Amino acid sequence: MANPAPTLLWGGRFTGAIDDLMFKFNESLTFDRALCKADVQGSIAFAKGLNQLRILTDDELNQIVSGLKKVEQEWEEGTFAIDPKSDEDIHTANERRLGELIGSQIAGKLHTGRSRNEQIATDMRLWARDQLAALALSLKGVLQVCATQAKSSLPILMPGYTHLQRAQPVRFSHWLLGHATFILGDLQRLEGVQERVSCCPLGVGALAGNPFGIDRDFLARELGFSSVHQNSLAAVADRDFVVEILQWASLLMVHLSRLSEDLILFSTAEFGFVRVADAYSTGSSLMPQKKNPDSLELIRGKAGRVLGQATGFLATLKSLPTSYNKDLQESVEPLLDCVKTVSQCLTITQGVLGSLEIFGDKMKAALTADMLATDVADYLVVKGVPFRQTHHIAGAIVRRAEELGVSIAELPLEDLKQISPLFEADVVQVFDFERSVEKRSTKGGTSRSSVLAQIESIEALVSKP
Amino acid sequence: MANPAPTLLWGGRFTGAIDDLMFKFNESLTFDRALCKADVQGSIAFAKGLNQLRILTDDELNQIVSGLKKVEQEWEEGTFAIDPKSDEDIHTANERRLGELIGSQIAGKLHTGRSRNEQIATDMRLWARDQLAALALSLKGVLQVCATQAKSSLPILMPGYTHLQRAQPVRFSHWLLGHATFILGDLQRLEGVQERVSCCPLGVGALAGNPFGIDRDFLARELGFSSVHQNSLAAVADRDFVVEILQWASLLMVHLSRLSEDLILFSTAEFGFVRVADAYSTGSSLMPQKKNPDSLELIRGKAGRVLGQATGFLATLKSLPTSYNKDLQESVEPLLDCVKTVSQCLTITQGVLGSLEIFGDKMKAALTADMLATDVADYLVVKGVPFRQTHHIAGAIVRRAEELGVSIAELPLEDLKQISPLFEADVVQVFDFERSVEKRSTKGGTSRSSVLAQIESIEALVSKP
Amino acid sequence: MANPAPTLLWGGRFTGAIDDLMFKFNESLTFDRALCKADVQGSIAFAKGLNQLRILTDDELNQIVSGLKKVEQEWEEGTFAIDPKSDEDIHTANERRLGELIGSQIAGKLHTGRSRNEQIATDMRLWARDQLAALALSLKGVLQVCATQAKSSLPILMPGYTHLQRAQPVRFSHWLLGHATFILGDLQRLEGVQERVSCCPLGVGALAGNPFGIDRDFLARELGFSSVHQNSLAAVADRDFVVEILQWASLLMVHLSRLSEDLILFSTAEFGFVRVADAYSTGSSLMPQKKNPDSLELIRGKAGRVLGQATGFLATLKSLPTSYNKDLQESVEPLLDCVKTVSQCLTITQGVLGSLEIFGDKMKAALTADMLATDVADYLVVKGVPFRQTHHIAGAIVRRAEELGVSIAELPLEDLKQISPLFEADVVQVFDFERSVEKRSTKGGTSRSSVLAQIESIEALVSKP
Amino acid sequence: MANPAPTLLWGGRFTGAIDDLMFKFNESLTFDRALCKADVQGSIAFAKGLNQLRILTDDELNQIVSGLKKVEQEWEEGTFAIDPKSDEDIHTANERRLGELIGSQIAGKLHTGRSRNEQIATDMRLWARDQLAALALSLKGVLQVCATQAKSSLPILMPGYTHLQRAQPVRFSHWLLGHATFILGDLQRLEGVQERVSCCPLGVGALAGNPFGIDRDFLARELGFSSVHQNSLAAVADRDFVVEILQWASLLMVHLSRLSEDLILFSTAEFGFVRVADAYSTGSSLMPQKKNPDSLELIRGKAGRVLGQATGFLATLKSLPTSYNKDLQESVEPLLDCVKTVSQCLTITQGVLGSLEIFGDKMKAALTADMLATDVADYLVVKGVPFRQTHHIAGAIVRRAEELGVSIAELPLEDLKQISPLFEADVVQVFDFERSVEKRSTKGGTSRSSVLAQIESIEALVSKP
Repeated sequence: MANPAPTLLWGGRFTGAIDDLMFKFNESLTFDRALCKADVQGSIAFAKGLNQLRILTDDELNQIVSGLKKVEQEWEEGTFAIDPKSDEDIHTANERRLGELIGSQIAGKLHTGRSRNEQIATDMRLWARDQLAALALSLKGVLQVCATQAKSSLPILMPGYTHLQRAQPVRFSHWLLGHATFILGDLQRLEGVQERVSCCPLGVGALAGNPFGIDRDFLARELGFSSVHQNSLAAVADRDFVVEILQWASLLMVHLSRLSEDLILFSTAEFGFVRVADAYSTGSSLMPQKKNPDSLELIRGKAGRVLGQATGFLATLKSLPTSYNKDLQESVEPLLDCVKTVSQCLTITQGVLGSLEIFGDKMKAALTADMLATDVADYLVVKGVPFRQTHHIAGAIVRRAEELGVSIAELPLEDLKQISPLFEADVVQVFDFERSVEKRSTKGGTSRSSVLAQIESIEALVSKP
Repeated sequence: MANPAPTLLWGGRFTGAIDDLMFKFNESLTFDRALCKADVQGSIAFAKGLNQLRILTDDELNQIVSGLKKVEQEWEEGTFAIDPKSDEDIHTANERRLGELIGSQIAGKLHTGRSRNEQIATDMRLWARDQLAALALSLKGVLQVCATQAKSSLPILMPGYTHLQRAQPVRFSHWLLGHATFILGDLQRLEGVQERVSCCPLGVGALAGNPFGIDRDFLARELGFSSVHQNSLAAVADRDFVVEILQWASLLMVHLSRLSEDLILFSTAEFGFVRVADAYSTGSSLMPQKKNPDSLELIRGKAGRVLGQATGFLATLKSLPTSYNKDLQESVEPLLDCVKTVSQCLTITQGVLGSLEIFGDKMKAALTADMLATDVADYLVVKGVPFRQTHHIAGAIVRRAEELGVSIAELPLEDLKQISPLFEADVVQVFDFERSVEKRSTKGGTSRSSVLAQIESIEALVSKP
Repeated sequence: MANPAPTLLWGGRFTGAIDDLMFKFNESLTFDRALCKADVQGSIAFAKGLNQLRILTDDELNQIVSGLKKVEQEWEEGTFAIDPKSDEDIHTANERRLGELIGSQIAGKLHTGRSRNEQIATDMRLWARDQLAALALSLKGVLQVCATQAKSSLPILMPGYTHLQRAQPVRFSHWLLGHATFILGDLQRLEGVQERVSCCPLGVGALAGNPFGIDRDFLARELGFSSVHQNSLAAVADRDFVVEILQWASLLMVHLSRLSEDLILFSTAEFGFVRVADAYSTGSSLMPQKKNPDSLELIRGKAGRVLGQATGFLATLKSLPTSYNKDLQESVEPLLDCVKTVSQCLTITQGVLGSLEIFGDKMKAALTADMLATDVADYLVVKGVPFRQTHHIAGAIVRRAEELGVSIAELPLEDLKQISPLFEADVVQVFDFERSVEKRSTKGGTSRSSVLAQIESIEALVSKP
Repeated sequence: MANPAPTLLWGGRFTGAIDDLMFKFNESLTFDRALCKADVQGSIAFAKGLNQLRILTDDELNQIVSGLKKVEQEWEEGTFAIDPKSDEDIHTANERRLGELIGSQIAGKLHTGRSRNEQIATDMRLWARDQLAALALSLKGVLQVCATQAKSSLPILMPGYTHLQRAQPVRFSHWLLGHATFILGDLQRLEGVQERVSCCPLGVGALAGNPFGIDRDFLARELGFSSVHQNSLAAVADRDFVVEILQWASLLMVHLSRLSEDLILFSTAEFGFVRVADAYSTGSSLMPQKKNPDSLELIRGKAGRVLGQATGFLATLKSLPTSYNKDLQESVEPLLDCVKTVSQCLTITQGVLGSLEIFGDKMKAALTADMLATDVADYLVVKGVPFRQTHHIAGAIVRRAEELGVSIAELPLEDLKQISPLFEADVVQVFDFERSVEKRSTKGGTSRSSVLAQIESIEALVSKP
């Protein structure tokens, strides 16, 4: 144990020393150094606010600003020397270093009326704001590759599945755009999250507000925030933006996981519909023939990781009493890790899709006539039979074909007529996959025109600035 | 085991019978009957769409519509007789009953080109849309009671806490509005959720689209949806709106839980700041003197319940392959239970807050001079001492007062001067809680004017239609 | 609002009435009636304890016991008439009814020194103990069907997969026993859970202990518990047994989910290895040809449900202060639902496995020569080449075969020799799936003898009483 | 992009190069280097097994063993030079380095018949086994400090709470031992977990078993495992031991969180029962007077973190198909972080409890006469009144006292008699907290003897080797 280091920001009233493990347990610089740039940015804005109040002279402000920029530069260049005795967090480290650079007489004024409670909230929001903007671009990148692949593979038909059983023929493009639809939702949701992240807590003090009359609207403008947090007690306790990001990311990762699941299935020997490029595969240390879609499995696995982060942090938040509690420190690591994970997974997804080999012949070969049983039922609907009956008739046909060991397309007209006299020679037209697909031409359907409309709508969105 | 009942919607191609437990395991009518009204509503819209296509004549449409209205009435009046052999879900039950009422020749046409996959998605969205509108009103109710209580208790000061340690004096109103700020966020987030819930999946078939050219824009308008789902494969697999509701509710419940936590603490004998009304308390079967804030503890507990629902369903969704899988049935129960839970918790919260006894004297008595240590530091800031030094000086004063066993307000000026010569007689003005509170008059601060601004902004929002 | 009903167990010191919604929000009889039998059982034991203390005379005891048995009978026969004004939980309902049956003069003595805090803890443990015993039998049922199927399908070879890519040939039995191994773990873990559930909290009062000297060892013996809870404050707050059951069930459900995932894949048209019986399948309301493995999808989905229950309740428990808090009421519903879910899923799993059609020919057809690449490498190992080199050689062979568009078994010896001169004519023996499987004859391997050893060990365990 | 590095363990059949981000996304050495020692240990055992099979000569074995020891030493000394192009995991890194040290001709034989699938499973279990043994000691440390503090504070009475409302007087020791009771459960559960962790997967190959007849019992003995994994397909897919550790840790952390919650409350100004030592507190950068129990808040927060890890990984595991999938890589980081977190939290808890200041006078002052209302009821029980009536009588007394604004101990005998004529002068004896506490002398009660019995039982357990 050692006495509180003189540079700790709070030692004045303490008589005992801090336990060594406790210092380690408590410190956050190990991870919140990721916020170094945002911390400097927030401090510069705050210094300007103090200058407006005449708490800092113009000269003091200038010295502080250039000192802080030097600090930021040291972080960027990797030359920032951490003092392991006192640098318990990024705010302390930066203020300590600033004092060394410009003297503590001036540096010591920077924290006037400010608390680390508002600083960390500001830093996290600044950092998250920039990161989310980058994630929006990544999402658009994934959407673009979906649109491009969908366009170039438009003629390819494949089995559509429900319950993983072959159901009806669909375009491969339509399948891919189905996944894109979920990503589109992520992009739309992201906008709302970004708006709420961009809310400025700076200027609220530790919990009760700023006593020197700092101009909070100015601070928000200076930092590019779009709104000002309305209640000081809430502002320092508010990690809802972290929750929102984690929840948003959880759902996004579920989408990537569902896409990965499909691609893993489709790249089995049994399906054989696609092949993941070598660039996104790895092999086995034991089995020489193996090529495994590790990239997709990792994405699927990381969906659990992010879900855990969202759940864990909500549980942490659940019963916290009013205002700031140290438990909130547990918001930083999941935020950092989640953003990194999502960013990587989006880039990998884009890469996998962009380099995916698509085997249209294998998909075509997997189309079987029983997938047209609904079309058989529809054939009779057109002849006036209530659908509920045509469904049973078509079911009977499937059963009959199974008994005979043939496909329903191979059943002689006689057999069909025996089941329903309404069948006529023109029923053969039903057994055409392309026709089946083209009939589904309503909005959101799998016909060529419907699919093209989806592609256009995605491309329009992606090209929006 | 029994053969598939003739009224099951899918028996045609099956030869074996369904296991009895399997029927029970599989059926959903036990809970999806909650969707009975939405199911009828969706079917009426679909029938109108079929009528536009001349698949249903005007007369058939009229019979179907009046039959379905009769079905709805039976559910409402509790006279709907369930057939335990065949009614595996609300769609099957309603179609079966419709057939009994108007004859299966016409009723059997209703399902033309339609699947239960799109029906359940439509029903859930219709139901959720109405429920969310009601929840928005409940949220406003809670906000209104916060504003009202804040206004009437404006003069009351209390200790503000961080880390549950007394920190700085604040207005009780400010504390209450801090919680209201979180609820405001819930209301804002809800708007986005509502918009995305209001998206129409009807007309997409089982997975591939509608083959008869049904007008999906018409269906959406008819049902009052604000948009049309863009991809049929995605539309039947899309439970993102359930995830969004569960996630939204998880965060809202965390807010109610944090408020409850505070109120439970404040109503202990030790704090004694508030008393929960008898109407929201219960007693002990063993200890005659007990009055317990059960209402608040239940809310706190139910925050875990809803968090579990969100987590569980996301886990269910995580690795699902493309399109519809039966796992999605697990989306219904959490949605129903979550909405009910949130609704009850909001009403209870409103009731507890509206009937809360507030003991301003007890709060005042809990204000102690050490909570003004920051103001002491600020006193020296104004005299030009860098804050970092004033903080250490004020810390030394706290320590000195502890040594002497007095409050810092009771330290003789001599002692203060010994620590810093800049202290003068006017320092006594610092030891005034009202003054400290009023100095925090920036936006979001705890001064009277800042608090009134918060109240006004809430009232403006609540009174918006 | 109405005054607290006179039969509420705690009204004495209350002046205000309870809010109607609050009563509904607070009451638990809707679900804790499931504990009716356990509640009676616990009360009878407690009455005997009071009789030992002479607080109840022999005659009073007899009346209470026969009254309680009548109460239980009413529950069993469905004739118990609930008083919606006062029956807020199963304890209150039973005590109220007992009073009506034998007079409140005697019935009113039953609760002497007892609290509902200890009652609900006792009831839940009694109920859980019986349910877990039943679940142990269900687990053994699943294990037995695994062993039986494994034995009868012993000769069948199939592709073993890693990363869902074909890896090495294995016995189908071996695959099935792999899943059984996980279930075995569940059975072993269950024993520990059962032991800790069987711990008696009765006799601890509301929190501080029993003031009349009740013999807690007697109570535990009377109720068949194997130990006595050691601390009264902990005993009423202890829901660790619920957590343990939920956690145990979460992992068990993950095992059933993984098995289901495999079976769903194996029953696709693309794999075609197995067919789920009609008894555990359902069809489509739209697509006449569909037969879907709904049973397995539901199991997979319900794994998420149970995971959510475990997570949610842990979150509820996380920050509770000392001793009993009403939040704990949220432990009851997840416990009840989880046990029911697990029980159903085990029975369905047993049914699905027992009636599964297994297509050995399709599995055999899926075996491809590249799955023997490791055996090719091993061939050279025996000739003294370091494995790391043989692995690269075998990799080169796979690549060469891909270039030539043939299987590695079809590569001419010349080509092999060009890659490594150590290949000789006897290499053809390597391309034999049965041989490959039989070589893996160490413990836990896939050879016939290894698999039989696994079967024997399961059968030995299952037949243990 | 670069061609697969020649030292990658699996490049032979690949033609394309791996994407750079993919390499980073895929690599695990960043974290699995924590397993370096276990990896060497496992390899040495495996080499001995190969030697038994004559695949390695004695000389080769010796070279491998001393080479591996050198590798371990390099890790320990921090001199191990990572090759960023090829060292994708600890197994690859170690094998690469071994080759450099002893030549690849011999080193290349080590992996004969072995896969990384079995290696990572073995490494993780070895590592976890050692860590759990250390955690068991930490648990005992916490239990010991509980026993010690309980013994030395035996005479101190405090309010016992339910619903955070004062309920009945208890010993402070009894409260502390209540928390110890939960920790005891953790220790017992840990034994079961340890047993199941100690199960050897080595020798199962990639999925199908070892083809050279390696002696798996020997491998297990050599590594000190207590059992051998029974199925190769399951063994490489089995992360149940990780789930168990995470679940076990989640519950343990909930216990530490509940203890922390109590201590945070008790150290508020309002309760004032305890003071956390300076060594485990920190201050505020703004408010000079603050001393905050950060240590306890962090523990409470980290309970959410661990809960999230357990939940997230279970979700990852939920729908995995058979055998090894790369998603399992996501098991490593949560395991490593969870064990570290738990270890730190236990040490901090022990430190906080050991240095806790306990203010018996403040606790005594918080005892109020209404906490004896149950004893008043019991007084009448002894006089033959049924408890249910005495409860209402005591309730009426509480209400009467509230009306008069006095404590129930101050009510004149006349008033008592008016409520029940059975009250006599000896009722004054009831109003004695020590007497109330001593009456609760059954097992698990709060009397001196009951508490001492708890202490003895803990000390006996802790001193067991």
